[in-house]
Amino acid sequence: MTLSEIRLFLKKHKIDAYFLPRNNMFLEEDILEEENEIFSLIGFSGSAASLVICQDKTYLFTDGRYELQSKMETNAKEVEIICSSADFPYLWLQNHFESGKFSLMYNPWTISAGTISKFTDMFPKAKLICDEKNILGNKLSSKNAHVFSLSEEYAGICAEEKISEIIPTIKQNGCDAYLLTSANEVSWLMNLRSDALPDSPILRAFALIKKDGSVSLFADNTDKADILPMSKLEKSLKSVKKGKLGVDKKNMPQMICEIFGEKNLVDIGDIIRAKQIIKNEIELQGYIEAHKQDAVAMIKFLYWLDNNYKGKTELDIVAKVDAFRAEDDMFLCQSFDTIAATKSNGAIVHYHPSKNTNKVLERNSVLLLDSGGHYQNGTTDITRTIALGIPKQKIVDANTIVLKAHIALASTIFPKDTTGLALDAICRKELWKENMDFKHGTGHGVGFVLNVHEAPRISPQAKNSHFSANMVTSIEPGYYKENDFGIRIENLYYTKECENSGLLKFEVLTLVPLDKRLINKYLLNEDEINWINEYHRKVLETMSPYLDNKHKEWLEDACAPL
Amino acid sequence: MTLSEIRLFLKKHKIDAYFLPRNNMFLEEDILEEENEIFSLIGFSGSAASLVICQDKTYLFTDGRYELQSKMETNAKEVEIICSSADFPYLWLQNHFESGKFSLMYNPWTISAGTISKFTDMFPKAKLICDEKNILGNKLSSKNAHVFSLSEEYAGICAEEKISEIIPTIKQNGCDAYLLTSANEVSWLMNLRSDALPDSPILRAFALIKKDGSVSLFADNTDKADILPMSKLEKSLKSVKKGKLGVDKKNMPQMICEIFGEKNLVDIGDIIRAKQIIKNEIELQGYIEAHKQDAVAMIKFLYWLDNNYKGKTELDIVAKVDAFRAEDDMFLCQSFDTIAATKSNGAIVHYHPSKNTNKVLERNSVLLLDSGGHYQNGTTDITRTIALGIPKQKIVDANTIVLKAHIALASTIFPKDTTGLALDAICRKELWKENMDFKHGTGHGVGFVLNVHEAPRISPQAKNSHFSANMVTSIEPGYYKENDFGIRIENLYYTKECENSGLLKFEVLTLVPLDKRLINKYLLNEDEINWINEYHRKVLETMSPYLDNKHKEWLEDACAPL
Repeated sequence: MTLSEIRLFLKKHKIDAYFLPRNNMFLEEDILEEENEIFSLIGFSGSAASLVICQDKTYLFTDGRYELQSKMETNAKEVEIICSSADFPYLWLQNHFESGKFSLMYNPWTISAGTISKFTDMFPKAKLICDEKNILGNKLSSKNAHVFSLSEEYAGICAEEKISEIIPTIKQNGCDAYLLTSANEVSWLMNLRSDALPDSPILRAFALIKKDGSVSLFADNTDKADILPMSKLEKSLKSVKKGKLGVDKKNMPQMICEIFGEKNLVDIGDIIRAKQIIKNEIELQGYIEAHKQDAVAMIKFLYWLDNNYKGKTELDIVAKVDAFRAEDDMFLCQSFDTIAATKSNGAIVHYHPSKNTNKVLERNSVLLLDSGGHYQNGTTDITRTIALGIPKQKIVDANTIVLKAHIALASTIFPKDTTGLALDAICRKELWKENMDFKHGTGHGVGFVLNVHEAPRISPQAKNSHFSANMVTSIEPGYYKENDFGIRIENLYYTKECENSGLLKFEVLTLVPLDKRLINKYLLNEDEINWINEYHRKVLETMSPYLDNKHKEWLEDACAPL
Repeated sequence: MTLSEIRLFLKKHKIDAYFLPRNNMFLEEDILEEENEIFSLIGFSGSAASLVICQDKTYLFTDGRYELQSKMETNAKEVEIICSSADFPYLWLQNHFESGKFSLMYNPWTISAGTISKFTDMFPKAKLICDEKNILGNKLSSKNAHVFSLSEEYAGICAEEKISEIIPTIKQNGCDAYLLTSANEVSWLMNLRSDALPDSPILRAFALIKKDGSVSLFADNTDKADILPMSKLEKSLKSVKKGKLGVDKKNMPQMICEIFGEKNLVDIGDIIRAKQIIKNEIELQGYIEAHKQDAVAMIKFLYWLDNNYKGKTELDIVAKVDAFRAEDDMFLCQSFDTIAATKSNGAIVHYHPSKNTNKVLERNSVLLLDSGGHYQNGTTDITRTIALGIPKQKIVDANTIVLKAHIALASTIFPKDTTGLALDAICRKELWKENMDFKHGTGHGVGFVLNVHEAPRISPQAKNSHFSANMVTSIEPGYYKENDFGIRIENLYYTKECENSGLLKFEVLTLVPLDKRLINKYLLNEDEINWINEYHRKVLETMSPYLDNKHKEWLEDACAPL
């Protein structure tokens, strides 16, 4: 259906609105373009999106990162954009339908049972209409996916051991089985990966874990013989005794309630995530090695860029940096669509160049490059802002302030259980001082050859993200001047206990120099200068053995003390 | 009843426990010693306390501030102390009575309806027994209180205007009236104060606010003719139509539910606090002036101390500093019981000297002095840690780190709505770096000639305290080394919008020098040294005109640049 066809349908059936989050049945952000109904309906490609289609108007909900991009990609006559992360869409629905009497249609596969519960609680007078016929026709891609195992050499723990660790939780809650619907968590638990998505090696499957330790996987279009087709899910679920199936209602499609009956499910929450985001020692070693491999690619790219940027476009940059990464034997795929943005495109947070927006790199400007790779032994995510020629002093100063914010957090020692909200403020403080800020999170957990974005979060909303040792997270403050330029400085770190005190610190994973041409030393204090020099010393010492002479010489220069 | 009599009573009636929070019917922390059942039962005098009396054992719940003090004041054979602020007492009850089947008695006047609701939700199998007969006999003091008006010259807004501002909220919620049970808020709303409490000039009364703007006050033992006795409350409440009385269930005694019927109340929350904690311009001017008056007393005290500390005890110090404050014509009372603590007593957070614990001030140690006053035009709260002779270097270094933490927060610029949790981390970061911390909040709002502790809070728990302009708050990091020494550095500030940016900053109210003998300049960076020098410049410039020559000379020395 097109947008106008949906509106006609709503009018005909006297339904006030259709609620369409940017989801497939796995309720995670990595979906294929062909699965993205919001993109096909209104042209918006951002990863944070929900649509409320009313009879007369369509509302797009996104967040600050996509403020500019959403305006560029959509038709202002048809679509009203609402950039707000606060309590969406509940508060909006409350204000829009003041009487509380409205009818709202949804697809039970692409909305969580938690959201439907919250709707029911908040809007007792509303009529929620389950779109069982799937009128929009959204479905998973039918492309065949190759499934492969992640060797224990890299995963650290075999699937059997991981499963055995969660069985007690299933039993303690009086359940016969647990249905896991998060593809990211299924992939982690089973040490399985696939090539279904271009930027994330997850296997898109559900797992039914029985209390005897046996696991059935459900997915369509894979080449692994023992994975059952999704059509078998209903029968398998019905073989579990009523009231004995454990689930995580908040993150499970409402459809499971429709199949199994909501009252027959035991909501025992997410029993995997807390284990998954604490990396084991083998995984950590993998991240460390993968970051060296990644740094080789980035250093080669930066050397190339210095000598070759003239006349190149953003798309040329994407091709080049992706190609350097692909040279590594253990490289699997990008960890997300590479972002190369120069001049005013840099101010569009999470911009991706396309033929329409592609800009030529110009002398005396900056390039913002956010990229990363999945390797067999780990995942990377790095942003560097790079000088082309001699950028204006205001850009150098802004970059220096962003770097101060990065250092403020990266050098923080903090107690276990500190929240991502508290860490966020420690970072932003340096920007606030200069009346600067940025409209995205300060950091995110990074999956191990899984989704690049996972828990914990570092952001003004992250009051429930609690930190402990052996978590891998980004630190990525930025600054964006609309129609002018953009800056972001991102490294990955893992949390580690300090000897003696038991407090936590950030240990750096990323080993690529920061652009000294964009640092105004006079804005830094002694501790900050020492931090930068020590970081560069570590980069040079660690990476030199992996480089040929010309790259080594370039790195020596890039890493010379301030 | 004594503790053993209560236990016999519980055994006889087969009741598992009596739950006794340190409250009177106003559910606030300021209660008289004679009203403090917990003190009379077990001897603990701290302001954070709840007791669960079981048939065989008694459990005292307090927080980290009182860890040492509670051990000193109670009998370990009778009372088990639990220091935890996390989810008490719900989690504890859950663990203690695993089956969920238990009977719990409570006094409906001293427990909030919100707590009873939460009990009911969490423990559906438990039997809650309302102690209507008040077997412990706890009641308000029968001492007569003098009631007086706070003149509009200081209050800034007359009671009628304040009332007229809340009437629309009462009407919008479909209520005929609103019952206000917080004495602090009644006092603010009516611009009334009293001398009922030694450390807080609040009028302990309930207010029934009708939608026509008329207000009835209820309190016993006052000298104000138009205040109705509490015995009239029930009749007045019953004159309000059922289902038309607005209340704040969370902060209202359960007794109101017993009188009015829980289902007949409309819970519209606290409709006063958000207004009360934003100070008006006259109030702010009052705080500024009161802090000058307070600084005169403190400077005179510090001058006296330098020349006279030898042989003096902590109780001598309390008497002296209280006397200097009392010299001011506008002084009403202390804003809390003055804390003077030296040597190991300093490590007991919120220690108050008594005859049993009183220590003599010794050369080459420090004195921690936390004190404040209510004046007709404002309230103060200040802590200084003061050198006696030449304290050990480790104390000087610890004081310097605490000062760095104080400055880190005091100099922060931050957006509106930043949480107290975020601000807390900005402060503690400097301590964490040195493997130091403290077990109390970083700051609290300060009532205007009301309770010295009010919203907002700055603490690891303050995820729901949001800051905006014109709030008055303390910043008071500390460090406590058990059996050795204690340090705390506290100033009051008000939040103010920065010109142009609209971000918030802290504007200092307290004007008393920091002890430079306890500052190791080599641990400070340039910005911190500048902050201290600028603060001392402001103290000297503002306070000099109010001092005679000998005090002025002392201040010039105390405020000379580092």
